[in-house]
This record gives sequence, C-alpha cells and structure tokens, in this order.
Amino acid sequence: MRCGREAAVYRPYSGEMLCRSCFTESVENKIRRTISRYKMLQPDSRIAVAVSGGKDSTVLLHVLAKLEKRFPKSELIAITVDEGIEGYRNESLGIVKETVRRLQVPWLKNSFKELFGMTLDEIIRVASNTLGERRLGACTYCGVLRRRAINTLAVEAGADVVATAHNLDDEAQTILMNILKGDLIRFLRNRPTRKNVEGFVPRVKPLREIPEEEIVLYAYFNRINYHETPCPYHTEAYRDDVRAFINMMETRRPGTKYDIVRVHEKLVNLISEEEIKIATCVKCGQPASGEKCKVCQLLEEVINKL
Amino acid sequence: MRCGREAAVYRPYSGEMLCRSCFTESVENKIRRTISRYKMLQPDSRIAVAVSGGKDSTVLLHVLAKLEKRFPKSELIAITVDEGIEGYRNESLGIVKETVRRLQVPWLKNSFKELFGMTLDEIIRVASNTLGERRLGACTYCGVLRRRAINTLAVEAGADVVATAHNLDDEAQTILMNILKGDLIRFLRNRPTRKNVEGFVPRVKPLREIPEEEIVLYAYFNRINYHETPCPYHTEAYRDDVRAFINMMETRRPGTKYDIVRVHEKLVNLISEEEIKIATCVKCGQPASGEKCKVCQLLEEVINKL
Repeated sequence: MRCGREAAVYRPYSGEMLCRSCFTESVENKIRRTISRYKMLQPDSRIAVAVSGGKDSTVLLHVLAKLEKRFPKSELIAITVDEGIEGYRNESLGIVKETVRRLQVPWLKNSFKELFGMTLDEIIRVASNTLGERRLGACTYCGVLRRRAINTLAVEAGADVVATAHNLDDEAQTILMNILKGDLIRFLRNRPTRKNVEGFVPRVKPLREIPEEEIVLYAYFNRINYHETPCPYHTEAYRDDVRAFINMMETRRPGTKYDIVRVHEKLVNLISEEEIKIATCVKCGQPASGEKCKVCQLLEEVINKL
Repeated sequence: MRCGREAAVYRPYSGEMLCRSCFTESVENKIRRTISRYKMLQPDSRIAVAVSGGKDSTVLLHVLAKLEKRFPKSELIAITVDEGIEGYRNESLGIVKETVRRLQVPWLKNSFKELFGMTLDEIIRVASNTLGERRLGACTYCGVLRRRAINTLAVEAGADVVATAHNLDDEAQTILMNILKGDLIRFLRNRPTRKNVEGFVPRVKPLREIPEEEIVLYAYFNRINYHETPCPYHTEAYRDDVRAFINMMETRRPGTKYDIVRVHEKLVNLISEEEIKIATCVKCGQPASGEKCKVCQLLEEVINKL
C-alpha cells in the first residue's frame, strides 16, 4: 500500500499490495531499471521493437513509447514478421496496425514468403510426412527463420538495437531447459546484453524482470488491446512441462523465477563470454556459426523434400 | 546385449540391453571410472564409508569392498551415525551389523545422544511448538548434525577420505534445487571432489553417476539386503517435487539426469573454487563458516527452548 487507494494487485514474491496506478508505475520503473542496469538502450538509440501483436510485445511497445518521450533523440520503429500462418497472423497484424497508429510509431514489415519463398504453413506442409510427423518442431523452423527476418528488418530500419519482449517466465524457462538438456553453450550465451557481432543488430530484453502475469495485468489496467489467440502451431510440450513446474515452485516459494534468473546471471558473469565464432554462410553470406547458416540448412532440408 | 544371455535391464539413456551379470559389471565399471576420473581414492587410502543401512550406502559398501580387493594397501572402515529415531534406526543398525560381518569390514558408530546430549527425536520434540510446527524441517536439523557426527567418526577412524552414497538422482535434484533457490554458493560448492580444509575429512561420492533405480536393481540382482523402511521424518516436500519433475523429464528425454550433472560440472569447472572461508567456531572449536558453527547454532536454538 503506497498511496492509500484500494489495492488491486498482491505480489507474493515481495509482499507488496498495490493499487492500479502504483502497480503501473512500479512495472514501468522496473523496466526502466532493467534497461539502465544492463545499458540496453542509449539516450539516442534507434530502437527496433519486434512486435507480433501478442500481449508481451504490445505491452513492450506501449511502455517503450511512454519511456521514450523523455529522450527526444531516441527513436522507435515497430518491426513485424508475417510468418504466413493462415487464420492467425492476419488478425494480429490488424492489432499491430491499430497499436502503431495509436502510438504514432513507424512500422516496418516483411514476410517469410518474400524472404524465403514460402510461408510457414507451406514449410510445415513440405517438412511433414503423410502422417503429419516432422523431424523438428514447428517452433524450431519458425524460430530460426523469424530470427533472421527480424534482423533483416532491423538492418533495413537502420536500428542500433532490437528490443524483444521476452519476460521473466520466458527467461526462467529457457534457463531451466538449457540445464535439463545439458546445453552449456546456450546457457552461457543467454545474456541480458550480447556483444556486437558484425551483421547482427544486438538484441535486448527490457521485460526480462517482469513476470508474465504482471504483463497481462498491466495490459488490462491500461486498456491495451492485444491478440489473444494462441498460435495454431503452439505445441511446445517440453517448454509447457517446464512452465508448469516453475509455476508450481513459484507458488511453493514465491521469488523462485527471480532466483533462477539471478543465479544464472551471477554464473554467466563469473564466466567470460566465450568468443562466439561467427563465420559467413557459404551460401547466403549472412553470419553463421558453422559453414552454412541455420536458415540455409533448414530451407535446403525443406526444398529437398519438394 | 553383450554376451548373448537374456537381457534383464534396458537403459533408455544409452539404448543398452544387459543381462544381470553384464549389468552388474557395468555398474561396477562406472563406479570405478567415477573414482578414477575425479581421483576420489588413492591405492593406499584409508576410506571411511558412511553407511546407514539404506539401499545406496549398503550397495556402496558392497561395491567398494569388491573393488578394494585389488588394492591391498587400501582399507575400508564402515561408519554409522545413530541419530536416535525410535522404531527406525534400530532395525537398520541390525542390517549394517550383518553387512559389515559378511564383508569383514571394521565398523565404528556414534550417536547424536552421546555427541550432542539429545536424540533426534528429543531435538525435534523440543524444537516443535504445541502444534508440531518447527522453524526448520527435520532434515535440516538431522543433516547438519549428522554431517558433524560423520566427520567425528572419520577423524576417529584415522580416515583420509569419507565416501558417501549420493547417487545420480540425488545430485541432479540438489543441482536443480540450488538453481530454483538461487543459491549460487551451494551450486558452486557441490563438486565431486572438494579441496582439503583443516579439520574436515574430504568427502567423495562414488555413486554420483549411478541412477537410483540401477542401485535398486544392483542390490536385487546381487542379493544385497538393505533397510527399506523410509525415515519417519521424511517430509522433504520441496525435494519430492523436484524429484517427480526430473523423473518426468527423464522419461520424456532419457539422459536428462546425466545432462544436468554434466552441465553443472562444466559450469563449476569454468569457475575457480572460491576460497571457502573456514574459521573456527568460537564455542566448540570445530571448523565453521561463520563465527559459530551450524551445529552450535542449531543446538543453542533447541536448548533455549528447553
């Protein structure tokens, strides 16, 4: 209770009781502190915000538009990738259009179709056998290609930095998944800020200390309209198990999500960032960790099936 | 299938099908490799084996007795702590007595009563309020005091090293619990071998790469009798949740337990073992991480309640 008004939110992890407006202020202050603590943005940054129209990215764009008013030399550009998912992406594009109009933020788009010659629907169809089985999950194809598409948009926008909307829950889940899979490289690479690599616009995560449920509450209290339909390809069973477990442990011991993220941060800070070998893809000339980049590897696999 | 005999065990994490005797050999070879990889034991070590009579420690004593035959200069001593748990410990002491007789291993015992003036039953009774609630779980009191009691026995036995029976499941659970609780210090201290600290006999964990269920199978195939009754104070709800989760993920992706332990090992190897400040307890003169050791802190708390 900060202001004497009726409390609307209780935070078990801190014991705070907050009214709607103190809660809104608190979320924005947390995001501001995250940005400054990790030096995510500069007063004159040209910031590309990856916006899908879902709750996280829509809230991110709203908050950054609000914070950015204090920095007249900084600029925001919303960027959106149309993966080509029938009956899903069209609706969300309408919401993004409405959001950027309301916030008066310039908007750049591209699509899998124009970049890779196929929509995600087409890629999934080709990659699946007659039983609908695939070697990789839909999220793997989509993730690899969207990453490239976002970078392409950020370069096109002349952005210094890309802000993505990963929240505290996403981060805690990813950290635990990397432990469970014994993936040391991904565990160590997942840092709040990453050093610059030629050809990649650096990415930052201003929402990494905001729990998912507080993002939903923030949107609700601030009448922010977002796309609620879940993606039709959403079948990340492994992540769903990890999410359910972390949520249970958070109930048992509030603060668990913050503890996971903090112990991970302390660990990676004790280990100097390894030189991430970045070569150039022999096929497309984009940055690659091996001889051929992940995008070309996936596309070739799909094209070979045609 | 190594020998042509009928398979009795399938290991999903490696794809192996093994008959009883190949399985036994494989478990023993794994333990041998663990010991040599981490230099846990020397050919002339005087090894105190902490034996409670449960499945893990009974199997450990059997395997070490078998391996030790090749090293005539090494010696085994079984050590057992009687915590004073009515209707539980007496039965297991009988099993340990039978085991050490069968294996012809010398046996040293002590008890909470003689060391600390109270049995665990008495400590728990005093530490609980009229509703049976306590500030700390029974396992916390027992763990701190048993650790001291084991060290006392090891010193008494003139041992170079204490072998404890923590298995792969125990290790994976502890690693994940330290992540969930954000406990960086415990995460980093939990190493297969620990540097020497004056007053502490170093501890090693030869079973850290053996899954719990293989320990049960090893005991079954080799007709090893152990104490099966669970401890009446067993109420580690937090660890039970973590255990259930890891077991589910192991089913989804066999090898998960090994991956957790290996990624942890790689991480701690990238971080030099911090100087663990060990002072001397102002009260009892034993090694302590603060001014007063954990044993004296807990006992004082209990005595103040009397």
